[in-house]
Amino acid sequence: MSTGKLKIDWAAQYMPVLASIKKQFEKDKPFKGMTIGMALHVEAKTANLVQTLAAGGAKVYITGCNPLSTQDDVAAALNEVKNVHCYAKRGCTVDEYYAAIEQVLDAAPSITIDDGMDLIHYLHTKRRELLKKVIGGCEETTTGIHRLRAMAAEKKLEFPVVAVNDTPMKRFFDNVHGTGESALSSIMITTNTLIAGKYLVVAGYGYCGRGLAQKAHGLGAKVVVTEVDPRRALEAHMDGYHVMTMDQAAEIGDIFVTTTGNTSVIGKDHFGKLKAGAILANAGHFNVEIDIAWLAKHADSTVERDGIITYILKGKPVHVLAEGRLVNLATPKGMGHPIEVMDLSFALQALCARYIAEQGDSLKGGVYDVPQEIDEQVARLKLASLGLSIDELSAAQKKYQCSWDIGT
Amino acid sequence: MSTGKLKIDWAAQYMPVLASIKKQFEKDKPFKGMTIGMALHVEAKTANLVQTLAAGGAKVYITGCNPLSTQDDVAAALNEVKNVHCYAKRGCTVDEYYAAIEQVLDAAPSITIDDGMDLIHYLHTKRRELLKKVIGGCEETTTGIHRLRAMAAEKKLEFPVVAVNDTPMKRFFDNVHGTGESALSSIMITTNTLIAGKYLVVAGYGYCGRGLAQKAHGLGAKVVVTEVDPRRALEAHMDGYHVMTMDQAAEIGDIFVTTTGNTSVIGKDHFGKLKAGAILANAGHFNVEIDIAWLAKHADSTVERDGIITYILKGKPVHVLAEGRLVNLATPKGMGHPIEVMDLSFALQALCARYIAEQGDSLKGGVYDVPQEIDEQVARLKLASLGLSIDELSAAQKKYQCSWDIGT
Amino acid sequence: MSTGKLKIDWAAQYMPVLASIKKQFEKDKPFKGMTIGMALHVEAKTANLVQTLAAGGAKVYITGCNPLSTQDDVAAALNEVKNVHCYAKRGCTVDEYYAAIEQVLDAAPSITIDDGMDLIHYLHTKRRELLKKVIGGCEETTTGIHRLRAMAAEKKLEFPVVAVNDTPMKRFFDNVHGTGESALSSIMITTNTLIAGKYLVVAGYGYCGRGLAQKAHGLGAKVVVTEVDPRRALEAHMDGYHVMTMDQAAEIGDIFVTTTGNTSVIGKDHFGKLKAGAILANAGHFNVEIDIAWLAKHADSTVERDGIITYILKGKPVHVLAEGRLVNLATPKGMGHPIEVMDLSFALQALCARYIAEQGDSLKGGVYDVPQEIDEQVARLKLASLGLSIDELSAAQKKYQCSWDIGT
Amino acid sequence: MSTGKLKIDWAAQYMPVLASIKKQFEKDKPFKGMTIGMALHVEAKTANLVQTLAAGGAKVYITGCNPLSTQDDVAAALNEVKNVHCYAKRGCTVDEYYAAIEQVLDAAPSITIDDGMDLIHYLHTKRRELLKKVIGGCEETTTGIHRLRAMAAEKKLEFPVVAVNDTPMKRFFDNVHGTGESALSSIMITTNTLIAGKYLVVAGYGYCGRGLAQKAHGLGAKVVVTEVDPRRALEAHMDGYHVMTMDQAAEIGDIFVTTTGNTSVIGKDHFGKLKAGAILANAGHFNVEIDIAWLAKHADSTVERDGIITYILKGKPVHVLAEGRLVNLATPKGMGHPIEVMDLSFALQALCARYIAEQGDSLKGGVYDVPQEIDEQVARLKLASLGLSIDELSAAQKKYQCSWDIGT
Repeated sequence: MSTGKLKIDWAAQYMPVLASIKKQFEKDKPFKGMTIGMALHVEAKTANLVQTLAAGGAKVYITGCNPLSTQDDVAAALNEVKNVHCYAKRGCTVDEYYAAIEQVLDAAPSITIDDGMDLIHYLHTKRRELLKKVIGGCEETTTGIHRLRAMAAEKKLEFPVVAVNDTPMKRFFDNVHGTGESALSSIMITTNTLIAGKYLVVAGYGYCGRGLAQKAHGLGAKVVVTEVDPRRALEAHMDGYHVMTMDQAAEIGDIFVTTTGNTSVIGKDHFGKLKAGAILANAGHFNVEIDIAWLAKHADSTVERDGIITYILKGKPVHVLAEGRLVNLATPKGMGHPIEVMDLSFALQALCARYIAEQGDSLKGGVYDVPQEIDEQVARLKLASLGLSIDELSAAQKKYQCSWDIGT
Repeated sequence: MSTGKLKIDWAAQYMPVLASIKKQFEKDKPFKGMTIGMALHVEAKTANLVQTLAAGGAKVYITGCNPLSTQDDVAAALNEVKNVHCYAKRGCTVDEYYAAIEQVLDAAPSITIDDGMDLIHYLHTKRRELLKKVIGGCEETTTGIHRLRAMAAEKKLEFPVVAVNDTPMKRFFDNVHGTGESALSSIMITTNTLIAGKYLVVAGYGYCGRGLAQKAHGLGAKVVVTEVDPRRALEAHMDGYHVMTMDQAAEIGDIFVTTTGNTSVIGKDHFGKLKAGAILANAGHFNVEIDIAWLAKHADSTVERDGIITYILKGKPVHVLAEGRLVNLATPKGMGHPIEVMDLSFALQALCARYIAEQGDSLKGGVYDVPQEIDEQVARLKLASLGLSIDELSAAQKKYQCSWDIGT
Repeated sequence: MSTGKLKIDWAAQYMPVLASIKKQFEKDKPFKGMTIGMALHVEAKTANLVQTLAAGGAKVYITGCNPLSTQDDVAAALNEVKNVHCYAKRGCTVDEYYAAIEQVLDAAPSITIDDGMDLIHYLHTKRRELLKKVIGGCEETTTGIHRLRAMAAEKKLEFPVVAVNDTPMKRFFDNVHGTGESALSSIMITTNTLIAGKYLVVAGYGYCGRGLAQKAHGLGAKVVVTEVDPRRALEAHMDGYHVMTMDQAAEIGDIFVTTTGNTSVIGKDHFGKLKAGAILANAGHFNVEIDIAWLAKHADSTVERDGIITYILKGKPVHVLAEGRLVNLATPKGMGHPIEVMDLSFALQALCARYIAEQGDSLKGGVYDVPQEIDEQVARLKLASLGLSIDELSAAQKKYQCSWDIGT
Repeated sequence: MSTGKLKIDWAAQYMPVLASIKKQFEKDKPFKGMTIGMALHVEAKTANLVQTLAAGGAKVYITGCNPLSTQDDVAAALNEVKNVHCYAKRGCTVDEYYAAIEQVLDAAPSITIDDGMDLIHYLHTKRRELLKKVIGGCEETTTGIHRLRAMAAEKKLEFPVVAVNDTPMKRFFDNVHGTGESALSSIMITTNTLIAGKYLVVAGYGYCGRGLAQKAHGLGAKVVVTEVDPRRALEAHMDGYHVMTMDQAAEIGDIFVTTTGNTSVIGKDHFGKLKAGAILANAGHFNVEIDIAWLAKHADSTVERDGIITYILKGKPVHVLAEGRLVNLATPKGMGHPIEVMDLSFALQALCARYIAEQGDSLKGGVYDVPQEIDEQVARLKLASLGLSIDELSAAQKKYQCSWDIGT
């Protein structure tokens, strides 16, 4: 068996929710006659989503959403699957990256699935002639949703897109547990340094940030949180972490992880204050959170190791992992999110894609929430796969919930 | 100095946010000529809110919101404060309880502040002639908000009420940390049992429930969570807790704490399954979550200790704390929420009362969110009191946040 | 039923190990004809030990080991038990304290059980004529053992004493979990302050200190540890805590708890540096760890509340709980160690007392370890009461453990 | 720069304690004229120890102590260092493994440094003629010490060996934090599965086991502990974990990690009970804890992936990582212990090797503890490198510690 196929099968055994959906799709064929265009991290878990969509009757055209996150053997294995075409290549140039996006779009998809909005952006700017063929899309990531909402606010989003990222089932698991665990394990394996006793600085206390903070704390780190929102800052304080500005954190941090979705969160004002040997990593979607450009310009020299670039600033080494790209995916040993969280996220994707297919032309351009029934259905499928039962409200309890007449 | 005054002063030193608001109120007198009617737990922290409102020019009439939560020495000390009248009494009968509510309403308040909605309910059912004098109100607790929303849905809420409970600054701190810590310390002090190693069952994984779960876990308990919402159930599972039905939990739990806001969460189907010596406590607002009535009716006999009633069920002892009322307030040694969280919650109350006063008649009947500026202001005041600084978005970062044109 | 008896029965239900030993003692009568003299905290759990020893045939004479830790209703109930005489009184003067010790010794005990070595000390200094009647003794606490070892080193300890405190089953549970939980709950109930977000300073990283650190951390505190041993200090650092000198900690701490067994750990060099409102508590045996004498002498004034004395130092209030005595026992609401840990500690006491009785005159004066069989027996009894099974080494595994011939 | 040299330099920056010792050795030359034979995991951290010893004047001959743990580029870089000879090769056969040990011994070392006792064992069984040249040795690991003590008990250990593993500075950091973090990160990266919510079974609750338990718990796992010692079992229970037999654990575990140092801890009685997809890993020194031989013999078929062998048992897949060898070292991406803990462990090795050199022939054959001064010195050097200060006992405190005359 090819290594790509072995990897896909490995993932499959920890994706029970997607498996049950695939089974249903094989029966229902919800995408019969449709083409789905995708730009996602091409690795074993994604391959299971692709197979699920194909099992539902779709022709699937896929490329990567990050130049460093493709696993070539998985890409090869995907090209063996019937009705699937994969154009992703690890380490591609920016030109190759966009050429592959072109190839996906050439198939004139009726549904798009994005992780970072590159497909939708390209459609709206360079291939507008294809817009009319698209029924709708799904977007996977916080950053993509930010961009889509900004686009929608300017009334420039011309088809409906389901904000998969913003739904509870995604944020609570993929962002908190997926990013939390995989960013830490990638940093640990890449640097071989200890977490216990270290000052680990988390920039941003959103869902990704709090997952990271909690798990680093659980490994023995002293966690520092930087924020721009006073309420989140206070939450971090009460959760037992140290709240300060990045300016202050720069002087004491051993390891830094950015999760803000914003630009230059660690930037020119901070680099000079870092301790020798400080380790900088990014867990947000784009490589803008650490100002690499400034470092490249101002470093005396650089040293490259596997997944680590060391910038020497006035004799002081500062280490950046994975060129400031998503540390859990773009380090040489990075495996991306754990399989089980992608099982949930991709179950949402699969069911939202079916939802889009079923709506046909009825939805206007704009950003849509994941329908609550889908969100809850994925939760129930997962609980069932774990063999866990939960309570149900009795009739008396439902009535009590709606009453206002019963006091002290 | 009286013991009541000593208690009020003790609390004052850990309420820096309210102190800074009081200072401002003394200058601005936002309640000049107004009467405020209150039904809150009458103890040292509340007394500081009362003094803050009085400092703002209001005449304040207050009674309790729970028959067991008043501290009589604090009530006495409040009656020494200029423009304050307090009618609360610990251990009052239900008749006395409502008579005191009558007394507060006799003052014809223009603003109401409730914890559990008893004042508003009484106004709308028994003293409707006073409704026209009321500009608006504030409600402190989850349960009160539930009742208010039900009332509003039936279009029966005749003045605007600010849902203080639902605002981030309340939920994140008062519910998570306040209920979490004070329920546990009350259980520990009342029962003198160990938390480490125990199965501690938390019914409900809302803000109160997750605070309790996290802190009990932090003390060494094995935490079991029961839920009716599949997503919250799955969150609890991933957070490291054991998810099951109350039926299953009944058989293994050592200590049970209800936080659902619903009725008979531990009820007739569960009591028979409990282990001998099981300890039952409630951290939700009303004493309906544990079906005490059933126990009283079916027990072979009962034994009363300080804060504990033991029901003997077919020879097996089952212990209920504080008659199923709020365990952090209604046990003999209970102190209610920690001072610092009430500093935040009462700061919200004080500023929302001012907001209501400033709006005059402009708001219709219904439930209103705490204005975001107020929520954020309280957070900033608290961070300042802690001496903590946070980052601010640069112009470039603000622009980046609104952009959608920058991709991979 | 009397309140004392109600308390004793309450404790009994969470002491399954002692109950099984009592059952055995009733059969074996190991103390037939013997007198046991005790100086322990007289409250419900101790009462169960007393009853166990009496069930074994002993006449028991008991007084307190701390002027503030007796519960008078329990003392009264003990005096109702056949063959038991109790002389303890809460809030006794120092003279009354030692008079009660005299009364216990007047009974000419053959076995002593101490918590802090006061009985043994008195015997060796003031009632030396009784020494020849004593077969041996047991000592409960770290501090007592320190004193006994110092005495033994000077060859002044004239009978064998079992160091119950030093045995794994005591240190791992009573010190770590018992002190940890009860000191925190007492501080929380006495001060009504929040633990989350606070700097909580633990002086000493022995068994008590690490229990406290871990549980305070679990509640959301930022834990600071002070130590004199570099290895323990480094352990605390790696466990995620902040290590510094008391001088440094004094400036940032919100709550301080001493667990060192040494004197003036918080002393004249530190008081001036404390923040206004700092809370000082002691969880070590004697009230010497916080230099109360200095405070009393140098404070501008003092304010007394229930369990709290506030010293005003140049206008700055500093609060000391329980007069610097054991915070979990000596605060008005303090309940001492949780019942379940005392079940283990008192099971050790009961079995060690039997061991002493069985040895007769065969042991020389000195400090003895708890026999490993007793230590392990208590562990097995507790596991059995919990219904937990553990593995046993197979013959092959035992052989492997002793081999050295099997390599890579 | 070669990749081996780059790796060695990377590690060097996080090894401040060893660096300060190297500096001292360069001055003192404690090994002048001596030969040191070593069998350790040959990777970047070990290389820094080798350089430190060479800096102290020794000729160093080194090979691996595990067929899968050598990094060939580091081995190559070591051979570039003056006075250093390295014979290790990743993936060597058993014959090659022992041939390399022969090569090291051919140099007739006066000091040996072992990790697992292979060198010492070979010397005592196959190259006894060299024994008289050896002054003494150091042993790094729990398993090696077990074997050495068994040997010493049979009076077959013919030179003194310092039990580096057994000293507080090794157990508290290397075993607890080093094994804990690196075993988890290796499992996470190798399997790409989530830890949160899983049942993670830790066999053995010694130092390695409790580090693993605590950190897995910190990541959100439900931790199950199996033990043969009732006291450790009870400790695990009170620390919040689930205690049961391996027989019971086999049915619920998702991930298993063995840390017992014993054989067939997961064996023929357990495999049949495992869930489909169960993941088995070993963090103990030798590959005997999981009975691989039984699996290989009884599996219907096997599938090999990078670092994972899947055994199909009656249709059910069971996955074994790294062939049951040390999971943190022997998986393809494994990096071994984090650098900072090896800084401490190798600082102990370096100072113990100097201690052996200084003792000359004065010590008899047998197992020796690390001298307390060395243990404490390493702690102090590490605290200094972190910039942390700790308290010192005052004269009054030292006196108090030795007194027994000051009571209640």
